[in-house]
Amino acid sequence: MSEHLRDGGRGVVQRTAVIDLGSNSFRLVVFSVGESRWWKRTDELSEMVRLGGDLGPNGELSPQRMAHALETLRVFAAFCATSGIRTDQIEAVGTSAIRDAPNGEEFVQRARRATGLPIRILSQRDEAWFSYVSAVNQTSLTDGIVLDIGGGSLELVAVERRQAEECVSWPLGAVRTTERFLPGDGPTSAKQMAALREHALEQFATAPWVATAGRDHLVGIGGAVRNLATAAIRAAELPLDSVQGFVLTPHALDTLVEQLAERAPEERERVPGIKRGRAEVILGGAVVLQAVLEATGAPGIEVIEAGLREGIFLANQLAPADPPIVPDVRVASVTNLARQHGVDLVHAEHIAELADQLVAALPGAGLPAPGEPELVDAAALLHDVGMAVDYDDHHKHSSYLILGSGLPGFTPREVALIALMARYHRKGTPSLGSAAALCEPGDDELLLRGAALLRIAEQLERNRDQVVRGARLRRAPGDDDGVVLELDADGDTVVAEWGAERQGDLFARAFGAPLTVARS
Amino acid sequence: MSEHLRDGGRGVVQRTAVIDLGSNSFRLVVFSVGESRWWKRTDELSEMVRLGGDLGPNGELSPQRMAHALETLRVFAAFCATSGIRTDQIEAVGTSAIRDAPNGEEFVQRARRATGLPIRILSQRDEAWFSYVSAVNQTSLTDGIVLDIGGGSLELVAVERRQAEECVSWPLGAVRTTERFLPGDGPTSAKQMAALREHALEQFATAPWVATAGRDHLVGIGGAVRNLATAAIRAAELPLDSVQGFVLTPHALDTLVEQLAERAPEERERVPGIKRGRAEVILGGAVVLQAVLEATGAPGIEVIEAGLREGIFLANQLAPADPPIVPDVRVASVTNLARQHGVDLVHAEHIAELADQLVAALPGAGLPAPGEPELVDAAALLHDVGMAVDYDDHHKHSSYLILGSGLPGFTPREVALIALMARYHRKGTPSLGSAAALCEPGDDELLLRGAALLRIAEQLERNRDQVVRGARLRRAPGDDDGVVLELDADGDTVVAEWGAERQGDLFARAFGAPLTVARS
Repeated sequence: MSEHLRDGGRGVVQRTAVIDLGSNSFRLVVFSVGESRWWKRTDELSEMVRLGGDLGPNGELSPQRMAHALETLRVFAAFCATSGIRTDQIEAVGTSAIRDAPNGEEFVQRARRATGLPIRILSQRDEAWFSYVSAVNQTSLTDGIVLDIGGGSLELVAVERRQAEECVSWPLGAVRTTERFLPGDGPTSAKQMAALREHALEQFATAPWVATAGRDHLVGIGGAVRNLATAAIRAAELPLDSVQGFVLTPHALDTLVEQLAERAPEERERVPGIKRGRAEVILGGAVVLQAVLEATGAPGIEVIEAGLREGIFLANQLAPADPPIVPDVRVASVTNLARQHGVDLVHAEHIAELADQLVAALPGAGLPAPGEPELVDAAALLHDVGMAVDYDDHHKHSSYLILGSGLPGFTPREVALIALMARYHRKGTPSLGSAAALCEPGDDELLLRGAALLRIAEQLERNRDQVVRGARLRRAPGDDDGVVLELDADGDTVVAEWGAERQGDLFARAFGAPLTVARS
Repeated sequence: MSEHLRDGGRGVVQRTAVIDLGSNSFRLVVFSVGESRWWKRTDELSEMVRLGGDLGPNGELSPQRMAHALETLRVFAAFCATSGIRTDQIEAVGTSAIRDAPNGEEFVQRARRATGLPIRILSQRDEAWFSYVSAVNQTSLTDGIVLDIGGGSLELVAVERRQAEECVSWPLGAVRTTERFLPGDGPTSAKQMAALREHALEQFATAPWVATAGRDHLVGIGGAVRNLATAAIRAAELPLDSVQGFVLTPHALDTLVEQLAERAPEERERVPGIKRGRAEVILGGAVVLQAVLEATGAPGIEVIEAGLREGIFLANQLAPADPPIVPDVRVASVTNLARQHGVDLVHAEHIAELADQLVAALPGAGLPAPGEPELVDAAALLHDVGMAVDYDDHHKHSSYLILGSGLPGFTPREVALIALMARYHRKGTPSLGSAAALCEPGDDELLLRGAALLRIAEQLERNRDQVVRGARLRRAPGDDDGVVLELDADGDTVVAEWGAERQGDLFARAFGAPLTVARS
């Protein structure tokens, strides 16, 4: 069986296994790259090793945990060997548990000998760097701070014009702060939490840039951040399956901290969205995040799905670039999704070009709305991505794939609007539905316009032959109400005209004007 | 851009356009075939031409409708030409409106000259034949009757051992019977409907095989049948997005007939599920179907999504076979879905083989349940089909793709169980959820067992290298409770054992016994 089919992907040309020897769990993630340069995760193994637990009197790794760790690494190595991933395609990294233990280096040497895996220990600085690489490639961050909170430490990276400028690390991880500042089997007192916040703020004060750099944009990485975001999404009953791009506000975080603190640690998993394995140690992390929000004055923490492992993969992948960042995250997300599913980009880009021309001269005062052209463009590129699932109902499948991908770089509202434009690009009456909870006033009209334009643009390219080179909307001369769609073409436009003429109903609903089609 | 990407598919090697010049609408459907021999619809154009309306005094096609029809055919021809579908890849057929009109042949000649499309007129017999080809390739029909009800006529085909044996046609279509027997702007009386049923039964009596051949299995084709099925699904609040495989029972049909009859024709679209364009003519069709159920004594009408166009495509596609039928519809459905999405069939078939071995010797009296091995086998072949969407949450994507495909040949209950086994093949606690409405007593345990076996089988082939050749479940010797999973292998099974051992929890829940893994 070819590699192509083995990964369920289209022409996989490269696979990379990133192995993360974390304090809590060990994980192996396979990233695949396709011949058309898409990338995605294609496999994962994980094991709760808890190497950072049961430490000896001087912080040594325990013999039992090391034995479990070695057994797990043997399985990971066997998996790579038998599934055809070579050693030079493996990145295996140890983080704080191994770095901080006096016998960490010795453990790594044993593990290298026993498994042949090219394990290296990441410095704090390297770890922060990979978090930055993840954040800057998976959000629209330009200037701000990236925070990564793990079990042991908190890293902050200042970002200016997409470059990492400053980096600090404090022992303010969720496990460490919960144990030190919030011990006990019962509810946690306001006083205990105030002491932790105070302590964190004192640390932050030692890096004066923290008070200014994160005011506009704070991006959060790590399991604790993702889990708190999930709980906030559940509390607000938002229609989101993923935390990608969600902004955790100070208010939502304060409410969660209250709910968590009033319960005993083992009861905290009852707060909807809080994971079982994380419930007992999450409060320390949440309080530290409150302190970060206070210190930076940020309006919230933008949460992403990616983390250290994606950062390592992307740093490799984008390596010739320094720093390893894509020129435009939104474009990269849209293109990656389109390529993963074999979208005909010549066709899709032509539809996007036609839609861009239409949106540039909309009939109506104050149109297009801010951001509207970019959303229409993305929807035009992705409207047919659902064809990879099935032709029947492919508009619904497109919406499913767009929502599932999360389109890093766009906000949840924007992703929902792009998905809905694709959803309504063929039929049905556009409606925000449950996505209204994510949207702003006027978004229902924006959706209506976007869907109407997309239907017209698609029909103009119905033949997939780029015969219609250009299209313009104009007020009909001598007729205040009517709008004429003028086409530039140099071939047979019978199918294009036939198709576009049939979109008049939705156009009239969106723009309050009847549409006629004319060849210029 | 290559054909591959143009169709959003994997290596499309052949495209066929089927153009159906129906009495109500004209439709062009593109079917694509992939290099791994999957097939699916990949495009569609349609236009409400209503060629069967406004007929002249002798039933002639009207000049206006013919002009509209010719314009539409010119668009279809231009679409084929510009999108690269050659004339020898086009099947264009006229049905009853053209066949029955005295100027139908003349219209076809004009249309051929004007468009170059290779239009031919289907005889009633041909039309019934293609309905049979659709039905026998999209259901598990062995012995029974295929019914196809259109606007003008009703065709019945007797099927014995999957062969078409008898065929009749009567002018009992939905439009014709509504106009003749159930005229009026108000509610329809029981007396009117009784007269229509009586008339239909008299016709059926002229073909004595109708009273016997359909007793066990009746398959229904046509828009009226599909629309009534949709309304019955809505009324029963069943979690079905498609009518594929749904059985419309006499009771559900009687209830719908009552609800439709008590409303004026233009109010009938208010019955949930009834389509606007069909509401005014559906009652005649529904009453004729009541008569078919009465005449045959069938327990219901199995409804399918496919019809004439699929029959024409499949008859071509399977042409060397006589009759053109696949050896096993269920196997063909599963394989088609797997191939459409590039499933690694060597890997998937190996997992299915391992799952088959496990299901053959389950610990527990009376196990496996009837039909269980076949469902587990299908789920094993399709569990990873969702990888085509994304690795993350691919178990959910597999369920989405399986439910969306409808898996012709399986019942809605079976499709739901296969989808749920795939849904729970990695994590989560298996539960029927809303699918319980489709299921039978004991199906929750069947799902639990299926998911548990699938998890084990997948782990045994976690490396995708077929190192585990065989697997058996055995009562542990000297221990009434325990079960041993014995493996036959001749390579490194460290990953397989590691993976299988981690599935003990669900196994214990499904079989009430702890699991240990041993190499034999």
